[in-house]
Amino acid sequence: MAKPLQIEVYNPNGKYRVVSTKPMPGTRWINLLIEQDCRLEICTQKKTILSVEDIISLIGNKCDGVIGQLTEDWGETLFSALSRAGGKAFSNMAVGYNNVDVNAANKYGVAVGNTPGVLTETTAELAASLSLSAARRIVEADEFMRAGLYDGWLPHLFVGNLLKGQTVGVIGAGRIGSAYARMMVEGFKMNLIYYDLYQATRLEKFVTAYGQFLKANGDQPVTWKRASSMEEVLREADVISLHPILDKTTYHLVNKESLAMMKKEAILVNCSRGPVVDEVALVEHLKENPMFRVGLDVFEDEPYMKPGLADMKNAIVVPHIASASKWTREGMATLAALNVLGKIKGYPVWSDPNRVEPFLDENSRPPAACPSIVNSKSLGLPVSKL
Amino acid sequence: MAKPLQIEVYNPNGKYRVVSTKPMPGTRWINLLIEQDCRLEICTQKKTILSVEDIISLIGNKCDGVIGQLTEDWGETLFSALSRAGGKAFSNMAVGYNNVDVNAANKYGVAVGNTPGVLTETTAELAASLSLSAARRIVEADEFMRAGLYDGWLPHLFVGNLLKGQTVGVIGAGRIGSAYARMMVEGFKMNLIYYDLYQATRLEKFVTAYGQFLKANGDQPVTWKRASSMEEVLREADVISLHPILDKTTYHLVNKESLAMMKKEAILVNCSRGPVVDEVALVEHLKENPMFRVGLDVFEDEPYMKPGLADMKNAIVVPHIASASKWTREGMATLAALNVLGKIKGYPVWSDPNRVEPFLDENSRPPAACPSIVNSKSLGLPVSKL
Repeated sequence: MAKPLQIEVYNPNGKYRVVSTKPMPGTRWINLLIEQDCRLEICTQKKTILSVEDIISLIGNKCDGVIGQLTEDWGETLFSALSRAGGKAFSNMAVGYNNVDVNAANKYGVAVGNTPGVLTETTAELAASLSLSAARRIVEADEFMRAGLYDGWLPHLFVGNLLKGQTVGVIGAGRIGSAYARMMVEGFKMNLIYYDLYQATRLEKFVTAYGQFLKANGDQPVTWKRASSMEEVLREADVISLHPILDKTTYHLVNKESLAMMKKEAILVNCSRGPVVDEVALVEHLKENPMFRVGLDVFEDEPYMKPGLADMKNAIVVPHIASASKWTREGMATLAALNVLGKIKGYPVWSDPNRVEPFLDENSRPPAACPSIVNSKSLGLPVSKL
Repeated sequence: MAKPLQIEVYNPNGKYRVVSTKPMPGTRWINLLIEQDCRLEICTQKKTILSVEDIISLIGNKCDGVIGQLTEDWGETLFSALSRAGGKAFSNMAVGYNNVDVNAANKYGVAVGNTPGVLTETTAELAASLSLSAARRIVEADEFMRAGLYDGWLPHLFVGNLLKGQTVGVIGAGRIGSAYARMMVEGFKMNLIYYDLYQATRLEKFVTAYGQFLKANGDQPVTWKRASSMEEVLREADVISLHPILDKTTYHLVNKESLAMMKKEAILVNCSRGPVVDEVALVEHLKENPMFRVGLDVFEDEPYMKPGLADMKNAIVVPHIASASKWTREGMATLAALNVLGKIKGYPVWSDPNRVEPFLDENSRPPAACPSIVNSKSLGLPVSKL
């Protein structure tokens, strides 16, 4: 006999059957589905990643839509199963959808949703948090304290960086990179150097205006420059945060050679994608440069780390929690649920997936639209007017 | 036979004999003393806190001045020993001097130096670092990752706070509290509530102007208010940082009652003095409120923690490293050395101990003055003109 799957059912007599492969934060997404006559089944199985077989069982014979996770393999098999069950919608609870075979979804006419528009600030705040933790060696200092090794104040104990007046380097100045740059410039009066293929006009305008604001208020102004190469950022910055997209040109962007260009006491932060950094070269560099520090949210072989990384005191390693704020995660759950619900109800697609505030306002009814459908053009779905 | 003390000697034939009870960061302070004809002896003994007997041995029969640490007991015994050896100057490498019996120093005509003016930003940055680490649960997330417990992304893993739009509460808005407030307001667009006996006019002016700057640049402005009671801050703020001085009125300022007033998911940071927080009550509160988080740099029974604190996952504990940046610690060493040197050379006392930039500029000769002597009035020392 096959093992049973653990499921929690809300509104058992609802007209539409929606499955969520995981419990998600908050309750608003649940209420929104129930109010619109959905029977909601949430898989509560204690298993981090559900297999294709698990999800086929969850879909069953009749299923209108599924909310799933980036860790699941959404290809031909699952979309054909969902389609057979009468399903018209799937949404990742994630911005990314590299786990989804969109062509397969198109083939079966299934809309694929994602959840942009709520991750920028939370991700940038994690990069700032890792930057500050690394600058002041918080994790190793905490470990030392808990181990009972502190027996009195010493002039040399865990001496770190003063950020004020140092230079922050941002590689990839899109939404997240720009938000991070502003946090470090405005919060800590750091000077900015950034590298991007495109000019970050809005960021430049802000930092210029902020420098003038400081000057007008009697403070030392901050400076910024756009670097002509990534190498310029690596050489000049004291704290470097990586925010590129991952593609062939950014694979192992940080490798043995680029690490060697950085200051011996630099801080490197990666909240983008694991393969942007050659993790084996990084471990070597950390070993050879005890005052070089790194804060990593992502890993090449996630969920695993390359050998040696877990032993490095000059590394801070966290398990892909860049979007892990209550506000963002509850927002992601709401957007994923509304993508699925909207398609079931035949709503149009929202015109700007990065401007989703109307869907998140707890005090009003969300718009009758799917917040973000990545294959809306392929499926010829109508677009809502703002 | 008594155990020998380990000492490192610079410039053995120098005219004046200066002792540092500990190695201190940087080399500039060493060079400054050598250039001015000092024989410098640095105690390199592997012992965290030197006893009075150890320091008497270091002073010996002829000693012009000593640079010491906050952990040492500078009272009648040491000042009489220093005076007998011909010494005229002692400086703590610290702002505080509660380890010094200034009356005893006065009695023997010994100048007592300290090192203000270089700790503000570094201390405020540590408070910010603890705030951000607590908000995103960096220490527990790192421990989880290193323990190999991460086996795939999950919607509920280490969900923390988004600071943007939340309220930061500052108790004690002096130099450090105000610098911290600006970091959190400008860096993370937090709203400010502060409590202080005195109005923080300069801080209010900055935050008002910054709110206008945000508005003018199309951002949501930030707000501030001065609370009429500490309780108002405790009730309203999401992140609370303590920056009062320690006296009878602030002993156990945070106790069982005040903890109960705070939000269940609030973050408390203490980089001021340990006894401002009732640590036993705090441990109980942390146990009962798993989402209440704390970042502590100081402890009631430093260097020890109250029972149970080291086991709490919702606490971050670091060993009194508020001033531990390279810039600040090297600055403290320089100021302490120049306090001692200045008195030996008969220089006047600098007029504003909080404006010490001229002493820290590595590219020019420091002013011929003692940067900060706490008993200059009692000793009738002349004051330098700025």
